[in-house]
Amino acid sequence: MVKYKGVTVWFTGLSGSGKSTIADSLKEKLKSMGIKRVERIDGDVLRKTLCKDLGFTKEDRNTNIERVIFIAKLLTRNDVIVLTSFISPYRKLRNIGKKEIKNFIEVYVKCPLEECIKRDPKGLYKKALNNEIQNFTGISDPYEEPKNPDLILYTDKETVDESVQKVLNIIIEKGYIEI
Amino acid sequence: MVKYKGVTVWFTGLSGSGKSTIADSLKEKLKSMGIKRVERIDGDVLRKTLCKDLGFTKEDRNTNIERVIFIAKLLTRNDVIVLTSFISPYRKLRNIGKKEIKNFIEVYVKCPLEECIKRDPKGLYKKALNNEIQNFTGISDPYEEPKNPDLILYTDKETVDESVQKVLNIIIEKGYIEI
Repeated sequence: MVKYKGVTVWFTGLSGSGKSTIADSLKEKLKSMGIKRVERIDGDVLRKTLCKDLGFTKEDRNTNIERVIFIAKLLTRNDVIVLTSFISPYRKLRNIGKKEIKNFIEVYVKCPLEECIKRDPKGLYKKALNNEIQNFTGISDPYEEPKNPDLILYTDKETVDESVQKVLNIIIEKGYIEI
Repeated sequence: MVKYKGVTVWFTGLSGSGKSTIADSLKEKLKSMGIKRVERIDGDVLRKTLCKDLGFTKEDRNTNIERVIFIAKLLTRNDVIVLTSFISPYRKLRNIGKKEIKNFIEVYVKCPLEECIKRDPKGLYKKALNNEIQNFTGISDPYEEPKNPDLILYTDKETVDESVQKVLNIIIEKGYIEI
């Protein structure tokens, strides 16, 4: 049986960069390894439930991330591997996450803005560029790149499987999973 | 080693009825039995963190409990024994908790209002009776008693240890802990 400890793997990056796809795939991979306690916390899901009262101003984004940190911390200290996928554009809040949660791996899902605009899986960039939605990260709102992420994934150059393997490797390297 | 499954033990009752005291004591008991994954979710704590935006109107109380349910569900399905202590005065919301979380034990911490007023550990009844605070359960806001709780604790007649033992017994009876 695989031994593991609680840890939060925090995926940050632009909308459309591939955070959720990679986190979903990693979850399946971990489950297939016999790891039972894995939880995905996804921006789109959370905004329909726990954070349905929040918009996209800086203040609301920060409150959103504060709540994610609160939940991820509870799960992590109860031996759950938590995979969060949020744009989480502000460095300050990500750093609070790292400090609060402790067992924390910051993964920067890096993809050029032009490529994200081309992918535009939810049609949101189109709307943002037409001024139909406001406060859109990369268009009308800033994204603060991580200065020292634990890992960078280049999703315009790597396959999903390659990215997933890189994340798995770093979880193992850091001793959260014992093979 | 003690084997256990995730379950939420939901303590409901008036302010001052003894919910937090019993839940805290039960947590220590479970830890001393070698149960590692135990989490307390407490009303007072939550209102300073995850729910600091909320007041005490019916709508806000319900949002507060919705968030508790969201968190307790995540923890419970990851094999954590969750002990929640909230007045949670509305039956409808407690029933949503039961339905959502599934592994759910409703514990009604029953104590006569007069006794709670006498105890008044936080001085809140005094303020409520002087109209210094509004929407106070039992004084200016309703408390809907559980119709079919899994367990009733009579904290004006039982010691804390007796109450804790009763809760532990029902967790075991229902098969969440194997001795």
